[in-house]
Amino acid sequence: MENFAFYNPVKILFGKGQIANIAAEIPANAKILITYGGGSIKSNGVYEQVKAALTGRNFLEFGGIEANPHLETLMRAVELIRAEGIDFLLAVGGGSVVDGTKFIAAAVPFEGDPWDILAKQALVKSAVPFGAVLTLPATGSEMNTNSVVTKAATQEKLFFASPLVFPKFSVLDPETTYSLPLRQVSNGIVDAYTHVMEQYLTYPANAPLQDRMAESILQTLIEEGPKTLADLHDYQARANVMWCATMALNGLIGVGVPQDWSTHMIGHELTALHGIDHAQTLAIVLPNMLSVQRDRKRQKLLQYADRVWGLSDGTEDARIDQAIQKTREFFEAVGVRTKLSDYGVGLDVIPLITDRFKQRGFIALGEHQDVTPKVVEQVLTLCA
Amino acid sequence: MENFAFYNPVKILFGKGQIANIAAEIPANAKILITYGGGSIKSNGVYEQVKAALTGRNFLEFGGIEANPHLETLMRAVELIRAEGIDFLLAVGGGSVVDGTKFIAAAVPFEGDPWDILAKQALVKSAVPFGAVLTLPATGSEMNTNSVVTKAATQEKLFFASPLVFPKFSVLDPETTYSLPLRQVSNGIVDAYTHVMEQYLTYPANAPLQDRMAESILQTLIEEGPKTLADLHDYQARANVMWCATMALNGLIGVGVPQDWSTHMIGHELTALHGIDHAQTLAIVLPNMLSVQRDRKRQKLLQYADRVWGLSDGTEDARIDQAIQKTREFFEAVGVRTKLSDYGVGLDVIPLITDRFKQRGFIALGEHQDVTPKVVEQVLTLCA
Repeated sequence: MENFAFYNPVKILFGKGQIANIAAEIPANAKILITYGGGSIKSNGVYEQVKAALTGRNFLEFGGIEANPHLETLMRAVELIRAEGIDFLLAVGGGSVVDGTKFIAAAVPFEGDPWDILAKQALVKSAVPFGAVLTLPATGSEMNTNSVVTKAATQEKLFFASPLVFPKFSVLDPETTYSLPLRQVSNGIVDAYTHVMEQYLTYPANAPLQDRMAESILQTLIEEGPKTLADLHDYQARANVMWCATMALNGLIGVGVPQDWSTHMIGHELTALHGIDHAQTLAIVLPNMLSVQRDRKRQKLLQYADRVWGLSDGTEDARIDQAIQKTREFFEAVGVRTKLSDYGVGLDVIPLITDRFKQRGFIALGEHQDVTPKVVEQVLTLCA
Repeated sequence: MENFAFYNPVKILFGKGQIANIAAEIPANAKILITYGGGSIKSNGVYEQVKAALTGRNFLEFGGIEANPHLETLMRAVELIRAEGIDFLLAVGGGSVVDGTKFIAAAVPFEGDPWDILAKQALVKSAVPFGAVLTLPATGSEMNTNSVVTKAATQEKLFFASPLVFPKFSVLDPETTYSLPLRQVSNGIVDAYTHVMEQYLTYPANAPLQDRMAESILQTLIEEGPKTLADLHDYQARANVMWCATMALNGLIGVGVPQDWSTHMIGHELTALHGIDHAQTLAIVLPNMLSVQRDRKRQKLLQYADRVWGLSDGTEDARIDQAIQKTREFFEAVGVRTKLSDYGVGLDVIPLITDRFKQRGFIALGEHQDVTPKVVEQVLTLCA
């Protein structure tokens, strides 16, 4: 096991009815801004629950944060907060709303152009405190320091992380997810699954507990994910997928082990250039990344094949092929297509992406830093 | 899954050499008290590492905190802290030192008799902040809110918990455990294993991720525990057992599921009355508790038999018997004896314990509140 530091002070309030408890988590005299997305919270009852919980409290609203939240939109919230003296934020929505709110929180007190937080990885020195009411299990943003924001003007999708943007609390009520469009439920399963794979499917680091915990999440997503699609009001299945998505990216399974993230880096470019949903890009790229990197990832691929898919017969390469195929089939089975052509994207996207990597100085990605633009090209060619 | 709240803000610094980083975690102008036990830290190099890390800082020392820390000893530290204006504690040692330091931290600002924190579960309203350098993986105290303290005068072993006694940070350096007596290494493995069992071996609550995470820790302890005894300087095995022990009782595997803890409650009495090591009492009681409660715990016992011990053939009761026997054999294999008679204790201890439970109003323990004094008697009879 490698040395590590772990710190995660997010308070989780999990289960039905927990929105009613948020007022106790927000300073009594706070001037609150509720941030949200396209308005689904107004039709599914979540908005009413939040308003009821904040009865007698001082709050304003800022809606319209889009999927892959736009810098341009978020900066309007920053201006509102500065003008109104807001001192607590409450993100109500999915990962995009939480990610966007993290950026807003860091941008408000930032001296200079907040875009530098993303483009130049400028240090975040303070942030407005915030909580979250999560309505879409997927990104893990509700219990981590990460945020991904898109500059619409230039189609750039970039991330930042800071311990100052841990949510103070996050409410995870599985019932708030009942009304999600199926596409978002499907995407969430694939997103969480891939988060685990980026931290697990590298090379052995003598960290058997982290390995088993990662496999535990994968197995549970495989078991519970389809249930959430078969019965939209299966509380237990929704609860289990929701908790899996949080545990997939709250830092714990990644302590003391190498991490990859090259699938995500390529996926972000596909989203930025073609607007493909984040999880869809992961479903396209991950299986082919595993295939291209099979020699570097051989031992963990065999472990994955055995422990997650029960594949222990046949040659090593046959087991690896089957495990990759099982992964692809699982993504398809939960409703996420796995080819670029399924989304009307051709291979002409490849030079655009490799050029962007070169421009940004991403010489090589992955746990061995050997996913060069040439490897990216190889992977994307298989994604056709 | 049941509703739950989870919050754990302890910063973990894990790995060799991490003691060198503690100064950055302690406020610059703090007046520090280093608390420790019988002095082993002075012979194994840990004390020197801590002193070197605190060069130029203002600190005093308080040694002599015993296993099953005594109220009487801890109150002497409380007086010293009050007299000297200490405002940060640094516990250096095993679970007893950390537990003792938690009590000290809560007792210093407590108005009234601090014994009430334990005996009357009086509310802890503030506590002196503290960090920990853990040298014995076992109790999980380094990443939770729990503390167990013994009043020597009356042979009472009681616990308290408060979110105010989370350590600010805990250093887990596996190398600090190399010089532990074998008995403590053995005890640590059994202690961590039983912590998991108390949260896992109850009844199904539709929490498959928590179940699998619990099984992950059990499997890893079974695999790595014996390695730490076979080669005293196996860094990776020490690291894995250390991380298992922390994860076993930092709250995560217990979220949203029923918990038992009756084995611990009985074990505490055996320690208080006969001075048997905590882990030894667990090794004595747990297998017999599982046996007596087999009907209430049937489904989880079968799951445990299958997933942890690979027992899937034979009648249900045969599998359960084998799983319990495997558990007992594992404890014996890592060096912890499993009968009362191994420790020179007879069955005359039974009425003493059941009387104490009645006195304290523990009408019934366990996840179903059906471990009555009569059941305790049944269990202890099997422990002969």
